[in-house]
Amino acid sequence: MPQLRQDLITGRWVAVATERARRPDSFTQAAKESVAARDVCPFCPGHETMTPPEVLAYRAAGTAPNTPGWWVRVVPNLYAAFRLEPDGQEHQDGRFWQRDAIGACEVLISSPDHRATTPLLPRRQVEEIVQSYVDRYRQHAQNPALEHVLVLYNHGRPAGASLEHPHSQLYAVSLIPPSFLDELAGARRFHEADGECVFCRTLEDERQAGARVIFENEAFTVFAPYAARTPFETWIMPRRHCASFGDLEANEKPAFAEALQLTLKGFYEGLNDPPFNYYIHSAPLKADVSNLYHWHLELIPKLSTAAGFELGTGIWINVVKPEDSAAFLRERIQKEAAQMA
Amino acid sequence: MPQLRQDLITGRWVAVATERARRPDSFTQAAKESVAARDVCPFCPGHETMTPPEVLAYRAAGTAPNTPGWWVRVVPNLYAAFRLEPDGQEHQDGRFWQRDAIGACEVLISSPDHRATTPLLPRRQVEEIVQSYVDRYRQHAQNPALEHVLVLYNHGRPAGASLEHPHSQLYAVSLIPPSFLDELAGARRFHEADGECVFCRTLEDERQAGARVIFENEAFTVFAPYAARTPFETWIMPRRHCASFGDLEANEKPAFAEALQLTLKGFYEGLNDPPFNYYIHSAPLKADVSNLYHWHLELIPKLSTAAGFELGTGIWINVVKPEDSAAFLRERIQKEAAQMA
Repeated sequence: MPQLRQDLITGRWVAVATERARRPDSFTQAAKESVAARDVCPFCPGHETMTPPEVLAYRAAGTAPNTPGWWVRVVPNLYAAFRLEPDGQEHQDGRFWQRDAIGACEVLISSPDHRATTPLLPRRQVEEIVQSYVDRYRQHAQNPALEHVLVLYNHGRPAGASLEHPHSQLYAVSLIPPSFLDELAGARRFHEADGECVFCRTLEDERQAGARVIFENEAFTVFAPYAARTPFETWIMPRRHCASFGDLEANEKPAFAEALQLTLKGFYEGLNDPPFNYYIHSAPLKADVSNLYHWHLELIPKLSTAAGFELGTGIWINVVKPEDSAAFLRERIQKEAAQMA
Repeated sequence: MPQLRQDLITGRWVAVATERARRPDSFTQAAKESVAARDVCPFCPGHETMTPPEVLAYRAAGTAPNTPGWWVRVVPNLYAAFRLEPDGQEHQDGRFWQRDAIGACEVLISSPDHRATTPLLPRRQVEEIVQSYVDRYRQHAQNPALEHVLVLYNHGRPAGASLEHPHSQLYAVSLIPPSFLDELAGARRFHEADGECVFCRTLEDERQAGARVIFENEAFTVFAPYAARTPFETWIMPRRHCASFGDLEANEKPAFAEALQLTLKGFYEGLNDPPFNYYIHSAPLKADVSNLYHWHLELIPKLSTAAGFELGTGIWINVVKPEDSAAFLRERIQKEAAQMA
């Protein structure tokens, strides 16, 4: 059972996930190790038995679970850093305290096509991916043991993707992650002082300023945040105030899929398919924050390296102005949108 | 002039360092770019005019500044994300607020030898490197405009080193970095509750537990922290309670140099020279925390990738138990220490 440990000094949380069972000497060659090509992809159709049994699949009528015929397939992560079944190993040894890392880790396979990364998929398929996010989010949101659900995508090995076949991931966890404590504290402070949602206010300010807005459709605004941490950091935010991604409405789904795909296409074409991470920030499940939180997607391309300064201080150094990265992406995405229209 | 921007929602700080003047389209090939070999290393002897004039050098008697003859040389960073001269561009545009990124960035060249990484240097030279850290720390600590001094080392390109010639870096900044606000809050909480320094307590607990201790000499303990963020995260901590690295005593210097070099040698030999970052955490310059803060060095090897989960939640996933990494390094370092003795 993976364990959560908390640093006594900073309060920082770490999940020690020994399930992956990497021995220390397996790291000896890590720096020079080349990626071994996999003969067999466990996410490709026909290899369904290589993964744990599916928990959701959109598949052709008449096809059996865990056989081909699906177009989106969700399975538990074989190397789960969080698990739903506690084993009671929780214990305290003086000031060294650990508890079971309770939660769920899932893999959401984007498409049967091993090479079909999101920018290249039919729009309809991107909508199906978004639907799988919503379905699994809502499923875990009902579990009273859980506090938070994060949907994310790692693209490219430098961004932490270990399998090539395009897939998103879901982490449902039994604690409110520190990132959200920071966001919620700021949102609460702003709400108390100014009586409104800090995300709604930011959206309005960004739209008025204009310089960092990259793309808009009827329901979403894509922009470079004012204090972007890295070159080309990009956020996608619904203009309707809504705390939880689980409350995405059916009529917002096509607009979200469009905003997501055009943004990814802007990166793919404009920056030559760079590695990136994106994740959807949604309100903690049980926190009473519907008036002050506002779900959104944050995309962080891996075009620079967080080094000793960032690790040691928590301050980021960004070598590109967000206004410049926004102008660059805006031009590419408008071109893409025109070609698609 | 580089600018500091603060995220309205999280309070996160970002230094937008446009001095490096990378245009957005310079990132287009980043993912596939190979590292261009440099014909001429600006840190090698004979190339002193390729850097800004030196601010400190330990050099042979009779040699002129900015000429060969030095064994440690410190110069301002040509690509400084912080600068001491404000240009008054501080301004607020509605809720978008920025201020000058005031501070100093320096490069501390380890040795005239382009290939001599710390594990391979004579011990005497490592002591000289430590002396350069202390000298520059103390110099900046006297500047009333500054709040904090961080000394760090980036090793290897995956860890953010852009030049091969071994060098440390110093960042002196005019704000208390967020990492320290977290540490100080925890240290203060512990001190109020238990009446002692949380770092002293941790040292005692670790020495008693033993499982995570890697090496000890007369003044320093090297150990894997209980909630290590990454495989092989390692801390070096003085056993004498002391808040500021600037107060390192002359008789502690050889012990610190020994602990640092043996630790780095353990990584170099045991893990095949992996990329890493280390930084020295020392108390903020003006904070009255002498009873509750305790300087130390944190070393984070780059053997895993912080991906969407870490970025999105602030929780780290570590696939190796710190007890296991400590046992692995302890064995190597004891072998090294025996060979050197």
